[in-house]
Amino acid sequence: MELLKQRIREVGTVLSNEIIKLDAILNHAVDPALTTAMGKEFARLFREENITKVVTIESSGIAIAFAVAQELGVPMVFARRKKSLNADSSETYCERVPSFTKGLVTDIMVSREFLDPQDRILLIDDFIANGDAARGLIRIIRRSGAHLVGVGIAVEKSFQAGGRTIRESGVRVESLARIASMEPGKIQFE
Amino acid sequence: MELLKQRIREVGTVLSNEIIKLDAILNHAVDPALTTAMGKEFARLFREENITKVVTIESSGIAIAFAVAQELGVPMVFARRKKSLNADSSETYCERVPSFTKGLVTDIMVSREFLDPQDRILLIDDFIANGDAARGLIRIIRRSGAHLVGVGIAVEKSFQAGGRTIRESGVRVESLARIASMEPGKIQFE
Repeated sequence: MELLKQRIREVGTVLSNEIIKLDAILNHAVDPALTTAMGKEFARLFREENITKVVTIESSGIAIAFAVAQELGVPMVFARRKKSLNADSSETYCERVPSFTKGLVTDIMVSREFLDPQDRILLIDDFIANGDAARGLIRIIRRSGAHLVGVGIAVEKSFQAGGRTIRESGVRVESLARIASMEPGKIQFE
Repeated sequence: MELLKQRIREVGTVLSNEIIKLDAILNHAVDPALTTAMGKEFARLFREENITKVVTIESSGIAIAFAVAQELGVPMVFARRKKSLNADSSETYCERVPSFTKGLVTDIMVSREFLDPQDRILLIDDFIANGDAARGLIRIIRRSGAHLVGVGIAVEKSFQAGGRTIRESGVRVESLARIASMEPGKIQFE
């Protein structure tokens, strides 16, 4: 998606060969026109899949997932991150995931009432690096019996294994911008 | 806003005289049609105020604030909650706020680059109870030199002091649904 790549070039701050700061458009401030356009693009890519629900993880995925859900006319669910130790309960699915950027472990949680075996789910997230959060959420979706239609990612760091390993597991992954490599002052897209 | 009150009656679970669970529409799952309608209503209420930025706090405020920002055609910024001790830095404003529902203290943070003295800001949040989070964010907005135009709240628990104390401080507060009292099975709106 050319508009997203252009904005990444404009506002992205490369902090290291592995970390890019996109606070101005994804992780702290949000440009509604850009995010709405991303929502329309994901909706276009997955329109024929009869999606019943868009699922993401708080917080930076929410605005994008909401824009997709608006366009598809289906509900959106955001998994909650929990700081404390959590296990499955009669009401929730929990999975423990490490966080690449934060360097710590969090538990993600979805209430059972919001995932149905009849659901056809599109998973949306802002970033994919090692893919731990996405894989945790995929495990939750599968355990609910719902069908995972695919994964939509705004920015994939394709030099890290997340997107590739999820594709290799047979899941369709669509990324709107794929960063092949980066260093301060220089971002190379695929 | 009649539609919101109706949905609260349908899906709200009153856990005590003070706590209502609205996971199905605000805090875990989101209905894009309802949230878009809330966005349009806040935009209508504040349209003449020449708002330049919509500000909220992660996570449950994000979808509503995004819908308002979409309608007004301005950027949205979400304050981040931090678990660790944080103080102001050259790059950020931080405020410590207690959380009514979570029973703990969190720090909220906004990067200085996203608040400008020229900004006219609409603060949006999903809930107001005691108003600690909103007051923390108001302190951050004021310290940045930006002008706070008003506060838009989806659900105000008007039997708690948050909305009232912020109004008494001279800030315009608009709530789309005001709960006067509640007990399991019964919700009374103002």
